[in-house]
Amino acid sequence: MNYARKLRNLFMTNAQLVCQEIGDGNLNLVFRITDKSSGKSIIMKQALPYARVVGESWPLTLDRARIESQRLIAQHSICPGLVPIVYHYDSTMALTVMEDLSSHLNMRKGLVARERYPYFARHIGTFLARTLYLTSDLALPAQVKKAKVVQFSNPEMCKISENLIFTDPYFASETNQFNPWIADKVVEIWENYQLKLEVAKLKEGFLTHAQALIHGDLHTGSIMVTKEDTKVIDPEFAFYGPIGFDIGAVIGNLLLSFASHEGHTMDSRERMDYQAYLLTMIEQIWTYFEKEFRDLWGKESKERMAVIPGYVDHYLLQVLEDTAGYAGCKMIRRIIGLAHVWDLESINDPSLRAKSEKLALSIGQELVLERRQVQRINDITSRVRQIAGWGEL
Amino acid sequence: MNYARKLRNLFMTNAQLVCQEIGDGNLNLVFRITDKSSGKSIIMKQALPYARVVGESWPLTLDRARIESQRLIAQHSICPGLVPIVYHYDSTMALTVMEDLSSHLNMRKGLVARERYPYFARHIGTFLARTLYLTSDLALPAQVKKAKVVQFSNPEMCKISENLIFTDPYFASETNQFNPWIADKVVEIWENYQLKLEVAKLKEGFLTHAQALIHGDLHTGSIMVTKEDTKVIDPEFAFYGPIGFDIGAVIGNLLLSFASHEGHTMDSRERMDYQAYLLTMIEQIWTYFEKEFRDLWGKESKERMAVIPGYVDHYLLQVLEDTAGYAGCKMIRRIIGLAHVWDLESINDPSLRAKSEKLALSIGQELVLERRQVQRINDITSRVRQIAGWGEL
Repeated sequence: MNYARKLRNLFMTNAQLVCQEIGDGNLNLVFRITDKSSGKSIIMKQALPYARVVGESWPLTLDRARIESQRLIAQHSICPGLVPIVYHYDSTMALTVMEDLSSHLNMRKGLVARERYPYFARHIGTFLARTLYLTSDLALPAQVKKAKVVQFSNPEMCKISENLIFTDPYFASETNQFNPWIADKVVEIWENYQLKLEVAKLKEGFLTHAQALIHGDLHTGSIMVTKEDTKVIDPEFAFYGPIGFDIGAVIGNLLLSFASHEGHTMDSRERMDYQAYLLTMIEQIWTYFEKEFRDLWGKESKERMAVIPGYVDHYLLQVLEDTAGYAGCKMIRRIIGLAHVWDLESINDPSLRAKSEKLALSIGQELVLERRQVQRINDITSRVRQIAGWGEL
Repeated sequence: MNYARKLRNLFMTNAQLVCQEIGDGNLNLVFRITDKSSGKSIIMKQALPYARVVGESWPLTLDRARIESQRLIAQHSICPGLVPIVYHYDSTMALTVMEDLSSHLNMRKGLVARERYPYFARHIGTFLARTLYLTSDLALPAQVKKAKVVQFSNPEMCKISENLIFTDPYFASETNQFNPWIADKVVEIWENYQLKLEVAKLKEGFLTHAQALIHGDLHTGSIMVTKEDTKVIDPEFAFYGPIGFDIGAVIGNLLLSFASHEGHTMDSRERMDYQAYLLTMIEQIWTYFEKEFRDLWGKESKERMAVIPGYVDHYLLQVLEDTAGYAGCKMIRRIIGLAHVWDLESINDPSLRAKSEKLALSIGQELVLERRQVQRINDITSRVRQIAGWGEL
């Protein structure tokens, strides 16, 4: 609080500050500082030199706080209103002071409660197109882009993703945690070498394909929402990687929500109604993304080859294929791997949860294996409908 | 000479040093310092802060001297005997002191003279496999690899390749230089949008695919040979890029030599005999590369997914496809773009040279356009035989 009081232009000198810890505690300390007299509040987020969820045995670079604050500031200039405002960054303390989003809800919780967000698809589609296109070789002079690759080299955070998303879930690894009710399905995945080969290829893309400065952890728990507003938070995993990884993270997590309602929403009409809403949202996200991306391609391209007929179509088809594949990987890791999601964990009955988890695994596998068949976003949502047993509705 | 005299352990105190400038003058100053009393000699290579061939109007980073010396030292430890030994590097002077290769011939000249190098395929195949595999994510812990990506970030040198290989030759650019006798064929290429789309995809790979620490300029002018020995020089373009770019550089330049003999060797039997030798050399290079790469994959893999059945086959097929595509790009740029090659420039009669150049362009285009059809190295050499009009020999 004393630290907050000393920051310029944040609080009045007579502010009555109170402090509350609000972090989920996985990696960082997060405090809300509120001035009781004015009601004004801010967030102070401090990185610890280890992963808080595991303890000091898992050291973790403080450099992630620099990456997070630098990305938030740059994203704000590219997409004003879609990320929290950074007021202050202190590299010695690995501390970022930023806009409080107390009126926003973590999107994961909203999705469990079957909330609807009429502007979300437009917001996130725009965020994805602008943050990704404008940091790619298409928009940046090659030398500027290469300097950013160095600036946002993020090996320790990438290592977490490499292990927890692309490796551990496919072997009987110690880090895995899964519902005993789905053990047969997990063993099936461990023995599915066709699937594992496709995951290996997607992992290779994650390791080598420096396409754009991606958020790197864009699941629905990294998104804060109100009915009208969307804020993307926590870009501490940012690095130059494949564009489809970010889009796939959003879509994969919406599909986890889709699957979770098998356990949350017992009224089948209500359930299918909300699930259909989620699929429409997925279609809209891609549509908004694609429209904005094509607009930028036409207006902002620095790449001379961008004018060649058919290049943008080819490029977007590759991104869509990656999107499907990474969405699938993101789904599978949340069922088998170390870090689970509230959408599913909030289903208390393990046998009921297993139903959702098996559906999620089936969708995830299909997306990984059949991603090269995907020609348009509706190819993804149609397959989900089929796998969910909706037939050709 | 005074500088050389002061270096420890190089020359005796009573050495009678003489100095000779031997550089080709494109980018750097290169001197040979010889002790007339002992016969011992060394090379001193100094980078200038501009491209010497153009003048001070084209500034160029001195950091390339660091990259070159660091790569030579690392390549020497990975492939002893296949690169010159570095005795000393002076970052202030951007100066590298290294082994003299006065008994070696620039390979380009040897190929013009129809020399044969019985160990070359084995040497270069080994060099490619070891330098590329051992710097990739397959062999290095991901964090070590990412540190090397930063260490060998080489934006200015990459920019030269991006422009001169992947952009300028496909437009009516000022930097282009081509034989007026092939103007019709050049215009055909400028109007071939299918070809340009494929080049755009290959350029994207060059810009984004940080697969291994590549040499970056591995044409036959960067290779010094004797009958028994091979030394790869000049890795100042090194950066993390696609593996196929290095292999394609070797193969594309051997195919430029292939085409050049239409102008050099008038006796058709003698010509076809040497051309067939070059095609066999290409097949052997890939075969040695693949064998060594597979050996390393089996023995040196740090990547846990490497054990998945079929992954190495898929990986090598992608590398072969890239190899064909980049070989094609390398051929086309040497005919249309700024920097030409001795193989062709040494054909004095422009109408005769045009015959070789057109053949080279036809092969280059085919490799770019049909690279996805290539399943094995002989698919490349067979197509070359067909294009050269040999039928199904």
